[in-house]
Amino acid sequence: MAVYTEVSDDELDAFIAEYDIGEVISCKGVAEGVENSNYMLRTDGGDGTYFLTLYEKRVSPADLPYFIGLMEYLAGRNISCPLPVHGRDGQALRTLAGRPAAIVTFLDGISVRRPRPQHCASLGEGLAHLHLAGLDFPMRRDNDLSVQQWRPLFRRCAARADEIAAGLAAELDAELQLLENQWPGKLPSGVIHADAFPDNVFFLHDRLSGFIDFYFACNDMLAYDIAICLNAWCFEADGAFNITKARLMLAAYQSVRPLTAGELSALPLLARGAALRFLLTRMHDWLFPVNGALVKPKNPVEYLLKLRFHKDITGPRAYGIDP
Amino acid sequence: MAVYTEVSDDELDAFIAEYDIGEVISCKGVAEGVENSNYMLRTDGGDGTYFLTLYEKRVSPADLPYFIGLMEYLAGRNISCPLPVHGRDGQALRTLAGRPAAIVTFLDGISVRRPRPQHCASLGEGLAHLHLAGLDFPMRRDNDLSVQQWRPLFRRCAARADEIAAGLAAELDAELQLLENQWPGKLPSGVIHADAFPDNVFFLHDRLSGFIDFYFACNDMLAYDIAICLNAWCFEADGAFNITKARLMLAAYQSVRPLTAGELSALPLLARGAALRFLLTRMHDWLFPVNGALVKPKNPVEYLLKLRFHKDITGPRAYGIDP
Repeated sequence: MAVYTEVSDDELDAFIAEYDIGEVISCKGVAEGVENSNYMLRTDGGDGTYFLTLYEKRVSPADLPYFIGLMEYLAGRNISCPLPVHGRDGQALRTLAGRPAAIVTFLDGISVRRPRPQHCASLGEGLAHLHLAGLDFPMRRDNDLSVQQWRPLFRRCAARADEIAAGLAAELDAELQLLENQWPGKLPSGVIHADAFPDNVFFLHDRLSGFIDFYFACNDMLAYDIAICLNAWCFEADGAFNITKARLMLAAYQSVRPLTAGELSALPLLARGAALRFLLTRMHDWLFPVNGALVKPKNPVEYLLKLRFHKDITGPRAYGIDP
Repeated sequence: MAVYTEVSDDELDAFIAEYDIGEVISCKGVAEGVENSNYMLRTDGGDGTYFLTLYEKRVSPADLPYFIGLMEYLAGRNISCPLPVHGRDGQALRTLAGRPAAIVTFLDGISVRRPRPQHCASLGEGLAHLHLAGLDFPMRRDNDLSVQQWRPLFRRCAARADEIAAGLAAELDAELQLLENQWPGKLPSGVIHADAFPDNVFFLHDRLSGFIDFYFACNDMLAYDIAICLNAWCFEADGAFNITKARLMLAAYQSVRPLTAGELSALPLLARGAALRFLLTRMHDWLFPVNGALVKPKNPVEYLLKLRFHKDITGPRAYGIDP
């Protein structure tokens, strides 16, 4: 939950005057989003309800045109996501209170805290549509949290890794070595969301109503995005893997975009990598909490257990995919 | 900023089903309010936009009927404030996620961070209307942060008061003694807001659009409410008292409800008491921060300086009131 930058009423009025959306009648800081400051905005013109984001330090300003451009591109291709609103000068990305800032349309929907199997199916279908819609997006952003970045991240945590679990440093070192050697390179690629956790996917009456928070989106293997979702959606709170959810998610995905043989056989490895990526960033935030952070670091152990689960898997059948 | 209690989508759906306001289409935790968990709620029925509050530990459940009843009473008498929404069973106060909870109508408007003189005038007028409208409110709640409660609060902080300013314990002890001896008892009384700080007063296009956050409201001297506002609205960020703002606020108040001679002469003393009340609660929260609190304690020194300002004042003329 986060509002890092406070916006004064005068600054806000001046900012909104650059748009054709009427005047501000309400602006509430929203307790959501880890990276940025978010406000729910109501005006007496346009749609009436908007979402205002101020981009904080963890988002690189150089990446913003990609994120903003992507949302606009996807929204124009029937993917339900926030649509950036342009100012009268044509610009969607502006400055407010000294930060890069953008207004996007407000997306109705609720994120589900405990996804049911049907939610996983809807997610799979939606993710495949998102992948197809993004295939020709002309901009490019490399995944800066992929296999090449894991070792530097690990090095920063290694000396204290065993505070989290005994022997963890050695275990992750071996895991990293394996992933670095075997990480696939030639699978179908395109734009991935890269953070489609349940908080970032909205539902209305059990139907997916849209994706939000594209601030980790990048170009990478599409199946890696599926692997991230397997981890984020198909484990129960007690750590158990729910194969029914995985089966439904993958089948729904494949009803829109069938996976190649290469993608299917790489899935266990991609899932290990995806687990390691979130384990490493959570470890880092856990071991080195930011002073004054408004967000409590998430316990990394959840992702250690997921990583270990995937290590024992030899083929996609364990995820409910029939050969 | 605060969301202390997370509400699951299932709990929320079940809760909303008790009302005649349609189904939930969005629910966002709001980063505002120090005491409670607040959500901005959108539904596909009724007004469409509501405010959902879960009352946390600092609010006594026994007081909630007073607060809810008061908002309803005032809203029925042309005071713009959130109107509690009743469930189909007639109840406005229910339970959600194990907490007392209520839905109120959403109030448009923006709180001003740096009030200008005209805002102070609007506040004075609005406060007087609020005082008149509440005069016959049939429920009663004593002010549990008035002169009788200051010494116990002071005792809890006294040993560490000098961490805030050298000699502060002795200074406050003397101040308390004086206020306990001279605190007025017979001034016009009624319902006071008791926390009408700029965050709790909304404006639209420079006109007051309503009061929120009635969770300190109580029965007390009306002029004490004015004293609270003098402190909260008429000092500049650098600590300087702005007599123009005070003059406008008091004149606008008196245009609706003229102050009695007794109220006018008591004003400096009431302003000292109001400064001490917020100094003491801020000192307490500063010296004894709650572990895991989402809200940063406010520096108490601001209110020490206000207290000292009022000590030098002998009559209401210093607040811009001509005799």
